[in-house]
Amino acid sequence: MNNKPYNNHIPVFTNPAIYTDYYELIMAQGYFLAGRKDERASFDYYFRNLPFKGGYVVFAGISDMLEILQDYRFHEDELIFLENLGFNRKFLDYLSNFRVHLDIYSAREGEIVFPNALSLRVEGSIIEAQLVETILLNVINFESLIATKAARIVHIAGHRKVLDFGLRRAQGLGGIQASKGAAIGGIDGTSNVYASFVHGTPVSGTMAHSWVQSFESELTAFRKFVEYYPDTAVLLVDTYNTLNSGIPNTIKVAKELEAKGHRLKGVRLDSGDLAYLSRKTREMLDKEGLEYVQIAASNQLDEWVIQSLQNQQAPIDLYGVGTRLVTAQDSPALDGVYKLSSIDGHPKMKVSENKSKSTLPGIKKVHRYLDKDGMLYCDGILLEDEDPVDTLYHPIHAEKNTEVEGLTYYPLLIPMMKDGKLTQPISSTEESAQYAKAQLIKLYPEHKRFENPHIYKVGISHKLMELRDKLAKNHNHS
Amino acid sequence: MNNKPYNNHIPVFTNPAIYTDYYELIMAQGYFLAGRKDERASFDYYFRNLPFKGGYVVFAGISDMLEILQDYRFHEDELIFLENLGFNRKFLDYLSNFRVHLDIYSAREGEIVFPNALSLRVEGSIIEAQLVETILLNVINFESLIATKAARIVHIAGHRKVLDFGLRRAQGLGGIQASKGAAIGGIDGTSNVYASFVHGTPVSGTMAHSWVQSFESELTAFRKFVEYYPDTAVLLVDTYNTLNSGIPNTIKVAKELEAKGHRLKGVRLDSGDLAYLSRKTREMLDKEGLEYVQIAASNQLDEWVIQSLQNQQAPIDLYGVGTRLVTAQDSPALDGVYKLSSIDGHPKMKVSENKSKSTLPGIKKVHRYLDKDGMLYCDGILLEDEDPVDTLYHPIHAEKNTEVEGLTYYPLLIPMMKDGKLTQPISSTEESAQYAKAQLIKLYPEHKRFENPHIYKVGISHKLMELRDKLAKNHNHS
Repeated sequence: MNNKPYNNHIPVFTNPAIYTDYYELIMAQGYFLAGRKDERASFDYYFRNLPFKGGYVVFAGISDMLEILQDYRFHEDELIFLENLGFNRKFLDYLSNFRVHLDIYSAREGEIVFPNALSLRVEGSIIEAQLVETILLNVINFESLIATKAARIVHIAGHRKVLDFGLRRAQGLGGIQASKGAAIGGIDGTSNVYASFVHGTPVSGTMAHSWVQSFESELTAFRKFVEYYPDTAVLLVDTYNTLNSGIPNTIKVAKELEAKGHRLKGVRLDSGDLAYLSRKTREMLDKEGLEYVQIAASNQLDEWVIQSLQNQQAPIDLYGVGTRLVTAQDSPALDGVYKLSSIDGHPKMKVSENKSKSTLPGIKKVHRYLDKDGMLYCDGILLEDEDPVDTLYHPIHAEKNTEVEGLTYYPLLIPMMKDGKLTQPISSTEESAQYAKAQLIKLYPEHKRFENPHIYKVGISHKLMELRDKLAKNHNHS
Repeated sequence: MNNKPYNNHIPVFTNPAIYTDYYELIMAQGYFLAGRKDERASFDYYFRNLPFKGGYVVFAGISDMLEILQDYRFHEDELIFLENLGFNRKFLDYLSNFRVHLDIYSAREGEIVFPNALSLRVEGSIIEAQLVETILLNVINFESLIATKAARIVHIAGHRKVLDFGLRRAQGLGGIQASKGAAIGGIDGTSNVYASFVHGTPVSGTMAHSWVQSFESELTAFRKFVEYYPDTAVLLVDTYNTLNSGIPNTIKVAKELEAKGHRLKGVRLDSGDLAYLSRKTREMLDKEGLEYVQIAASNQLDEWVIQSLQNQQAPIDLYGVGTRLVTAQDSPALDGVYKLSSIDGHPKMKVSENKSKSTLPGIKKVHRYLDKDGMLYCDGILLEDEDPVDTLYHPIHAEKNTEVEGLTYYPLLIPMMKDGKLTQPISSTEESAQYAKAQLIKLYPEHKRFENPHIYKVGISHKLMELRDKLAKNHNHS
């Protein structure tokens, strides 16, 4: 059932300012006491490793983050709580008037993004830019993770429908954002009523085993159900025995419905060998002229199981995916980080003994290059004030480079917020899903395959490389 | 820093009634239309598989669930939303006056529980007992999962402290409940300010790399920090180079602090080989008479890494555990289910071709038997109205049985809610943590070890076995 979103907020997010790691507040007070509160800082958001051993990430969470920032403030009860923890009275006064004045440049929600190329840049006073770190990482890491998982599942399912059935096994209230991420990644509907209420995702769902058990027989349970839902019923057929009871009863009920001018929508298989049972079910239904009755399947599905079912040509029309989608079971966290790159115009970096974990200094932009077919070709990280470049260098192996002369590009990071105010409307879940779908079409299949996907190129400009190497050298000599 | 909980609620949980799978509402409307709304149902909560290949689960989430149920109602905007989805007007009128009148019998929060023995029983009208399924599974599955993960980590850490640092990688708003679960499982503190605000968990945290980078030198960054936090500072020493820069600068600052009558609290290692770096750090600090400076370690820790560090006798005083704790990375979902067991006094069961997935019919209780040393010995599942038994039978292999004659037992399920009203105060997070700690002491180490833990016995009474077999036979012949 389709519906308009009731609103696009997360009304449950009532205390955003203290949904944070304690050290953000400790550091913020330190900056305040050091008289540095108005220094201007820039931070980059990016991740280092692709989840699911995959080839890409669908960027999500920025819409919720922009919503959160607009209502970001410290409430009276929170300030009392902080005072009891020993915070300085003057700092608490400062927090009581605190509002976000950040500038945010970000990839669009639904954009396809890759490791080490920043997809978000935050600029503002050092205190505010620091304070929002934890909540920003929490929201963007998780929604991007689930959007990516969903995109993989939808990709392999092809024209078949995919529904999110995961709420009962989601990680607590994270279920709200799991369903949102799944919608951005392209799923067709959700069992999560709250997600539909907030984000407008179509809701779906019919019956559990308890419905069937609660009647004196399976046949009565089916008959009663189609009496109330003659056009939308999907009968759960495995309460007692799928092929000996569930399907024969389904056939009876479907014919009774036909006699009344309705058509049974479908059956759901929720246990056993789904390839075998779907094939047998299809045969039994078709033999009775019930070709129109769809087969839905659920139970521990993910992209790998679906791939296997499709390789076996299992006649399944709809996949209900739960736990493994909403928890991203095989990679349950995206390792996104938020790193300082500049203070008052001075570029900053963290030097690591492991060069791939060093950060890139300075305020930066990202150019997304397209090849002559309009497909995603590579990303280049440049300093913000730099002119377009012709050559990009591998961030670690500088001897490798890529020519981008003459290629079309677009800026990956676009202004989303200026001085704490939105510079454009926040993307709805539906809009983000549409954008992700369009961008995924521009991504070569080699990046989308599951086994050893082709690595997308991300390079840096010569000027950025020089700046980085100079700062690293200074640190090594200090 | 320790603090009193501000309150023990989850104020963010503003829309509990629609935080549900759609089919609960579809079935509820079906029961309503069928004139069955006042039939009395009983459901059991239990899980089938232990997470982490472990030997037990720490039961958590019941406190939040009881809070949620007291405020469970459909709001006007939600009813309009449901009306737009096509729900029946009379059913919506019913929902508008809907309040929970459930009876709930549950294991205490913090109890140690085992597969297939129900840890929670819900009784009430079939509509209300059905409607709360999704949110109950969502909350209890996740909080129990994290409480269990935390208990494993705390167990191996022994006398060393363990802190929850996971919020930035937690699954969105699930971070709230992750920190609560972690506290129930025994962690000593959290970085999550919100969790402290709501649940009273002590908060902890000092500085990030950005603090160090934001100053012209690491030494200045350290000096400034201890100026504001002379007695609580834990210096992050790996921004540039741990042993060549971080520790030498720490030693300078520690000695300056000593001259002012303070003592540096500690250093934190956040990268590199923690066994090697902690040993070298300890040597360098001790050589300078700084034996009192503690070493904290973080970076991809879990029970296995901590076990390895302890086997290497790494001199680490405090573990900061993040992603792998709050997402339960190696088993990110507990497979708890909620199964109908009775309608209006008639026992109900789901028959599965796989006997271990069949449900146990009837309203049941659980006896927790202790051995003569007062240690947890086994659980017995009996029918509610049954007298104590002397023999328990293996649920699948009936030829295996266990004598429990003369053993002390206590009822695992205790009344928590009667007709929608609390029958006792809701356990605070601190109380649940204390109870878990006490119960874990009564669990033999063989159940707590990580590799192939000893399986705890769960049996059923002869009467329950007979009832189950009779109903299964009827279904097979129907």
